[in-house]
Amino acid sequence: MTNNAQLLNYINGQWQTSHAQDYLEVRNPATDETLARVPLSSKDEVDQAAQHAAQAYVKWRRVPAGERVQYLFKLKNLLEEHFDDIAKTITEECGKTLGESRGELRRGVENVETACGIPLMMQGYNSEDIAHGIDETMIRQPVGVVAAITPFNFPAMIPLWFMPYALACGNCFILKPSERVPLTVQKLFGLLEQTGFPEGVVQLLNGGKEAVDALLTHPTVRAVSFVGSTAVAKYVYSQATANGKRAQCQGGAKNPIVVLPDADMEATQTIVADSAFGCAGQRCLAASVAVTVGQAREPFTEVIVDAATKRAVGYGLDEGVQMGPVITSESKTRIEGLIQQGADEGAKVVVDGRKLQVSGHERGHFVGPTVLQGVKPESDIAQTEVFGPVLSLIHVDDLDEALTLLNRNRYGNMACLFTRSGSAARKFRYEAKAGNIGINLGVAAPMAFFPFTGWNDSFFGDLHAQGWDAIEFYTEKKVVIERWPDAWSRKF
Amino acid sequence: MTNNAQLLNYINGQWQTSHAQDYLEVRNPATDETLARVPLSSKDEVDQAAQHAAQAYVKWRRVPAGERVQYLFKLKNLLEEHFDDIAKTITEECGKTLGESRGELRRGVENVETACGIPLMMQGYNSEDIAHGIDETMIRQPVGVVAAITPFNFPAMIPLWFMPYALACGNCFILKPSERVPLTVQKLFGLLEQTGFPEGVVQLLNGGKEAVDALLTHPTVRAVSFVGSTAVAKYVYSQATANGKRAQCQGGAKNPIVVLPDADMEATQTIVADSAFGCAGQRCLAASVAVTVGQAREPFTEVIVDAATKRAVGYGLDEGVQMGPVITSESKTRIEGLIQQGADEGAKVVVDGRKLQVSGHERGHFVGPTVLQGVKPESDIAQTEVFGPVLSLIHVDDLDEALTLLNRNRYGNMACLFTRSGSAARKFRYEAKAGNIGINLGVAAPMAFFPFTGWNDSFFGDLHAQGWDAIEFYTEKKVVIERWPDAWSRKF
Amino acid sequence: MTNNAQLLNYINGQWQTSHAQDYLEVRNPATDETLARVPLSSKDEVDQAAQHAAQAYVKWRRVPAGERVQYLFKLKNLLEEHFDDIAKTITEECGKTLGESRGELRRGVENVETACGIPLMMQGYNSEDIAHGIDETMIRQPVGVVAAITPFNFPAMIPLWFMPYALACGNCFILKPSERVPLTVQKLFGLLEQTGFPEGVVQLLNGGKEAVDALLTHPTVRAVSFVGSTAVAKYVYSQATANGKRAQCQGGAKNPIVVLPDADMEATQTIVADSAFGCAGQRCLAASVAVTVGQAREPFTEVIVDAATKRAVGYGLDEGVQMGPVITSESKTRIEGLIQQGADEGAKVVVDGRKLQVSGHERGHFVGPTVLQGVKPESDIAQTEVFGPVLSLIHVDDLDEALTLLNRNRYGNMACLFTRSGSAARKFRYEAKAGNIGINLGVAAPMAFFPFTGWNDSFFGDLHAQGWDAIEFYTEKKVVIERWPDAWSRKF
Amino acid sequence: MTNNAQLLNYINGQWQTSHAQDYLEVRNPATDETLARVPLSSKDEVDQAAQHAAQAYVKWRRVPAGERVQYLFKLKNLLEEHFDDIAKTITEECGKTLGESRGELRRGVENVETACGIPLMMQGYNSEDIAHGIDETMIRQPVGVVAAITPFNFPAMIPLWFMPYALACGNCFILKPSERVPLTVQKLFGLLEQTGFPEGVVQLLNGGKEAVDALLTHPTVRAVSFVGSTAVAKYVYSQATANGKRAQCQGGAKNPIVVLPDADMEATQTIVADSAFGCAGQRCLAASVAVTVGQAREPFTEVIVDAATKRAVGYGLDEGVQMGPVITSESKTRIEGLIQQGADEGAKVVVDGRKLQVSGHERGHFVGPTVLQGVKPESDIAQTEVFGPVLSLIHVDDLDEALTLLNRNRYGNMACLFTRSGSAARKFRYEAKAGNIGINLGVAAPMAFFPFTGWNDSFFGDLHAQGWDAIEFYTEKKVVIERWPDAWSRKF
Repeated sequence: MTNNAQLLNYINGQWQTSHAQDYLEVRNPATDETLARVPLSSKDEVDQAAQHAAQAYVKWRRVPAGERVQYLFKLKNLLEEHFDDIAKTITEECGKTLGESRGELRRGVENVETACGIPLMMQGYNSEDIAHGIDETMIRQPVGVVAAITPFNFPAMIPLWFMPYALACGNCFILKPSERVPLTVQKLFGLLEQTGFPEGVVQLLNGGKEAVDALLTHPTVRAVSFVGSTAVAKYVYSQATANGKRAQCQGGAKNPIVVLPDADMEATQTIVADSAFGCAGQRCLAASVAVTVGQAREPFTEVIVDAATKRAVGYGLDEGVQMGPVITSESKTRIEGLIQQGADEGAKVVVDGRKLQVSGHERGHFVGPTVLQGVKPESDIAQTEVFGPVLSLIHVDDLDEALTLLNRNRYGNMACLFTRSGSAARKFRYEAKAGNIGINLGVAAPMAFFPFTGWNDSFFGDLHAQGWDAIEFYTEKKVVIERWPDAWSRKF
Repeated sequence: MTNNAQLLNYINGQWQTSHAQDYLEVRNPATDETLARVPLSSKDEVDQAAQHAAQAYVKWRRVPAGERVQYLFKLKNLLEEHFDDIAKTITEECGKTLGESRGELRRGVENVETACGIPLMMQGYNSEDIAHGIDETMIRQPVGVVAAITPFNFPAMIPLWFMPYALACGNCFILKPSERVPLTVQKLFGLLEQTGFPEGVVQLLNGGKEAVDALLTHPTVRAVSFVGSTAVAKYVYSQATANGKRAQCQGGAKNPIVVLPDADMEATQTIVADSAFGCAGQRCLAASVAVTVGQAREPFTEVIVDAATKRAVGYGLDEGVQMGPVITSESKTRIEGLIQQGADEGAKVVVDGRKLQVSGHERGHFVGPTVLQGVKPESDIAQTEVFGPVLSLIHVDDLDEALTLLNRNRYGNMACLFTRSGSAARKFRYEAKAGNIGINLGVAAPMAFFPFTGWNDSFFGDLHAQGWDAIEFYTEKKVVIERWPDAWSRKF
Repeated sequence: MTNNAQLLNYINGQWQTSHAQDYLEVRNPATDETLARVPLSSKDEVDQAAQHAAQAYVKWRRVPAGERVQYLFKLKNLLEEHFDDIAKTITEECGKTLGESRGELRRGVENVETACGIPLMMQGYNSEDIAHGIDETMIRQPVGVVAAITPFNFPAMIPLWFMPYALACGNCFILKPSERVPLTVQKLFGLLEQTGFPEGVVQLLNGGKEAVDALLTHPTVRAVSFVGSTAVAKYVYSQATANGKRAQCQGGAKNPIVVLPDADMEATQTIVADSAFGCAGQRCLAASVAVTVGQAREPFTEVIVDAATKRAVGYGLDEGVQMGPVITSESKTRIEGLIQQGADEGAKVVVDGRKLQVSGHERGHFVGPTVLQGVKPESDIAQTEVFGPVLSLIHVDDLDEALTLLNRNRYGNMACLFTRSGSAARKFRYEAKAGNIGINLGVAAPMAFFPFTGWNDSFFGDLHAQGWDAIEFYTEKKVVIERWPDAWSRKF
Repeated sequence: MTNNAQLLNYINGQWQTSHAQDYLEVRNPATDETLARVPLSSKDEVDQAAQHAAQAYVKWRRVPAGERVQYLFKLKNLLEEHFDDIAKTITEECGKTLGESRGELRRGVENVETACGIPLMMQGYNSEDIAHGIDETMIRQPVGVVAAITPFNFPAMIPLWFMPYALACGNCFILKPSERVPLTVQKLFGLLEQTGFPEGVVQLLNGGKEAVDALLTHPTVRAVSFVGSTAVAKYVYSQATANGKRAQCQGGAKNPIVVLPDADMEATQTIVADSAFGCAGQRCLAASVAVTVGQAREPFTEVIVDAATKRAVGYGLDEGVQMGPVITSESKTRIEGLIQQGADEGAKVVVDGRKLQVSGHERGHFVGPTVLQGVKPESDIAQTEVFGPVLSLIHVDDLDEALTLLNRNRYGNMACLFTRSGSAARKFRYEAKAGNIGINLGVAAPMAFFPFTGWNDSFFGDLHAQGWDAIEFYTEKKVVIERWPDAWSRKF
């Protein structure tokens, strides 16, 4: 693919050139090189995709689940086969290190694996004789045409949170990936094509806001999955539902990590550093605030400053690099502004990532690991999602105070605790108002067979991505009540 | 209670006089007598209730589920004890026959019974060793403060679709009943008071649109359940979600019943008549269109006309009465207008309920059973929800045509088939686009341990009332991932 | 009831005098008074009960589950109403304190409550289109006639582990209670009679080995539940299965409690003392060995000796009594012999319950709390079930050694750990080979909505008592695969 | 492999020559050629395998489920790759046609696919706050070392009913295949070896009764799965359980098919012929008795006689062959004897398979399709499992009589009904005492995600092969109850 290649849509089993008026350049955030041009497909193209999906659905829903998952078994094999190639693409367009890319892709593959179990997962339930001679059965049928709108930070994993389940349940699926990272999805659809999914069952539509709005208002699209910022998640949720659809919309986060004095500081440091600085902090499960409790302050500050200082930043494809760039120069500017704001609000910038130069990659959008000390709970920096490698340190006296602090958070994606104490862990898991809780873990990402939960402004809807929730979201329940009088069985 | 009694709200464990400016009169639809005056509570009163609920929630969520259901076991006993009294109240304010009132109350009690199982139903799931030494657990915790807004046609059952599950899951619950039928709920809350629920856990707020809007926008209310017309369901769904809440909103219906030539016509007649004319047609599962297939036309028309003609209409408390009045004179006028519209569109009014006089109850809002013959599928009467005892007859040649017809329906609450054929039943259940399917049944109302499903414009959301869906709706999932290094167990 | 009353069987809805040749006297273990005479019913009487059950089953299985549980709702009410009376009877015939009797009865009632959820718990599962046009459904149907044989130590609770589930699932149930404690069950059946269960659905058969053998070989009895000693459990398991039945047989135990140095010694003491000495140690979940780890030895020994010394032993109906007698004088003799054996093997009897005199109850079978120090892991006393208030103290150096020690145990009913360490707890729950694990708990008795698991020689079978396991055990699965060609739906 | 090759065992990751004293010849039943020699491994070899399994288990149970299933994903791929080769081996040693071999192998692969879902299927359940501050969790852990003993008629499928689930749940698995058909399993283990399962996790032990008895008594083997005749099933069940193991033992059958007058006779004929004569009748789900109801007698007799007459019998590898030989000459002799016995009891042999000669394969053990007319219900032939291509015709007057007849059957593996009537189907599925019910199907074999149920003398135990039952059978439940006082979280 040449650097100026215009990316294609995958509509009705064909790779198609978009009729879009506008394009965006896709750039490698580490080198600023242009990798491709992505079309911003029009409302009409969305309509075309939706119509093909609706047509494909008529047959697809009638393919037995056991046959539908055969495509996923093939996809699993193809993903394993092309694993390194896709991981490299992730790094190129998204900036994270190759190890991180491999990690996210592995999580994606696990969702394909889990969705292979849909013949069993999609079972309904039934009761004989709810009244004498009357039986009742709940059958799961697919919803119809569904769409997902996915963000830039996990180009492979997040589409795979939705797609395998949606398809295996018998739906037709339209993906609108982030226009910043469309290349990974191109590869993914190359593999989907090889699996032989029937035309129109799975479609790729590159685009921006026009495409999103068209999906949200299209009468044929019955369900929408979204991952992105809280502002857009809220918008997508209200628009999709105002148009009568079901919706699951995951938003932003400001994830606290609480460190108790009895924590294993060495282990905690490694884990927190990976959480705060891994993927350059561009994760909805990134640690953003470390709350030190009591005597944990000094030892933890010491080790985390050390970790931030030593973290190797560079091009994700280079050996030994532990952290890549942020996604765009706008993003870099925004993050640096937030660091400054933190300083202006009284925090001490004990490790400052703003001055970072990565030699050989001077045009890359690098921000180094940053640690702000003495952050006040009520300050903006303590409450704003940074989406960059910036960790704020807040100090409290005890666990109760830490919980009060974190439960004031408008978000609720993740909360982690570092401790040796079983009681502290129980109290934390019982009381922390967040969907994903980590105990001695820094990135509490649920496995594919668990829901990826988020609370408060981190999630809008009731059914989450992955696992059993995916089945609930991607199927309609149909209740059948039957009465077959015995007497009729005697007449022929 | 005197006829002019002003109904009270039940807030924070106290019966309180509303500060409402406006009141409505609650009238017996069979006699037009005023039964009571219902306050239209203000936004401030909603806020007060929400705040009490939020306070109560702090303790209530910590009461073990096994203790929480003890209140429901008591409620079940109290409902059995006061069964006839409540049924009588339903008839007085809602108009249906005493038998119908008893029927709906029984369904309500079944939901209380089912919710007694919440210690088991609310279990989460868990995996050991998702990675070496790391465990993952999904815990269900209550959502917080939740509200339900319920309609006039099932004054007891529909509040009980929601309340028992919400409470047993550890939520605090606010009920805004229909301002047309607030008396049944007064009795229900009298019993709830006797069970001893802690203050603020379950609250009653009488009111109209102002109260609804206040619930939909109140930040403390986390989830909203609604049953009513499609227009309002859509409004509630979009407003609740725009305010970040989860919502389940059940709307209207236009339920078709398909009669095949091999049906047992006598049995079919009884069942269809009960579905079309029972509760004066004011059911979201009322049969509204009978589609006769092939040679079923003549025999079915004959028997249903006979049934409509003979149905005894009167005051629901009187012996032998099979059908009561519709809810208001406005409703009666609207229904009669729709009958006329059907006639104007070319249908033949073979049984005309408009002329009905019920002696001794001349002021009652009675409309007699009505049958329209030769209704054209594309006519308005064939597609508009009547919510009255009016059955339209449509004829088609075969089952495929019947399915095409009914799948064009904008609603999808129920579809029924009458046949002896296993194949026809299978085809119907596979293809009919409706949530509740009846085979040789006229009112396919799911049992409490099944979801009350609706499709298309009959339901907005993804999780339904009753059973397992109620648990999903009324709980937040929290995923906890724990790592407890083995090595730490060796140091003390 | 006079003290010499001959207890009746409850067969086919009638209280019947047994034709037994032999009788046993039922005695109050605290006073040695005769409470009643219990018949040892014959093989013929078992046959009669089985035949009545088989007849009753024909109709009972056709009663909808929602109706069947109405009897359990009534039973729950009756049990609450007669709660204290039954508790008193338990104490009189079994010896435990009134508080302990109330505790076990509460656990029994919880099983009745849980079984009220059977309409939902008994749901089967189903898949549409396992192949094109073919559907598959798993329906649960009752097994038929089932029996339970229950032990002396929980006269109310253990029958209620089985009966409510068996009945609610549509089976007919025969109870053969311990001939030592038949009085509680007499009261229970008095209540069952009041609920109005149809004749033959639930039957009581007093008896001993002849009755047991007759149940194990009777062709009509399809499933057997047993709780007792390991030797008899093994016998029942092998006999029931050799006769083609399903069986679940719970046996004995030798439950270790591990105390880590970081445990809260005061809390641990109370809990361990209750576990070791509560119910006079006659619990399958009694702590029998306390394994102190490292520096826990001294402080734990000190507090437990203190607790053993101070425990108030006496007649369970008397105020302030904390521990009652053991069941019989034979039992007392056996326990005292085992204490002596421990001493002979080198243990130090630091608290000796053998000399205990309870004034006013000199004829009671009392053994006081006993603590053996320095018990060697390989000694007999360390491995033999005592079923009396005797706690052996063993010391090890670390948690690994403790786990090795307890995993050599031939039993596997329970293992408990006392610690503040989350890591130690995780290691313990991961590695301990026992069915019921307690963390900072001394009697890890699963709630009614969990299985009462046992491992190794503590349980024979695969499905346990209570909760979901009960449903699996008391239902047959029937898989129905249906093909209804679409083409047939077009011909009438 | 030369024809006299001595088959190897696969022990501890190595192909090993057995030290067996005795060998059997494995012969192609269509040609009587010797294919290989199979060792009858000794008790010592069983012990060796069990010990290796026990050692392997220590590590294998600690491999996360998500990693364990990676071996199954590989196995699925290898099975697809070698599909035709294995199918050919099945035909060679077992005799069925290549199409039938492919069919059974497909069913086997589906079990591998379903078991890939074990990370999700193996989830336990949990409740927070069963009492204030106490949590309860049910964790599933593997059982340990388990064994399966499989029959000759499905050399690939039946081992795959058990193995994938056992392994994926974390058990170590020992297979003792039928000594008649050991070659398919050799190929299967060739693939298992390629997947890279750790040493000792999965082992193959060729053998006969000595090996079986050694498995049934070995203390390390915790669970036994068996499929074979009822006599042996009963033996295995009673021996395994007498040795304290869990066991699931599937036995023989005598499957009735009921044909109502409204059945589609052409479709019925094809299906019944495939069921009765497919796999030469050597299926536990083979139709053995056809019960014609009322006017179904004549048309059904006519078509089935026609089908039996025309069925092409020959070597399963040859084109166009519809039925192969029976497994051995002894089997042929036994079947022919049973046909004669039927005739002696008064049945008319309207199609007689005894005289069949297959040219070119004169040494093959062929028995042609046979139809016995006018079989009396009480005759031996009506009740004895033939396990050959013999269909007995019995006539009754109505469906009630047919049900009475089939419910007297000592077996209960399958019962099928052919009809267009929904009522007849409902009555049949409600009342027929058999585990697998077919409606308009002749071989009601449950899919991998359903249990393969059998009732009465067709199954001993409570948990069946495949699906959710497999998880229950292959895991121990461990209930953990935890108390972590809040107060402890405040001290550091």
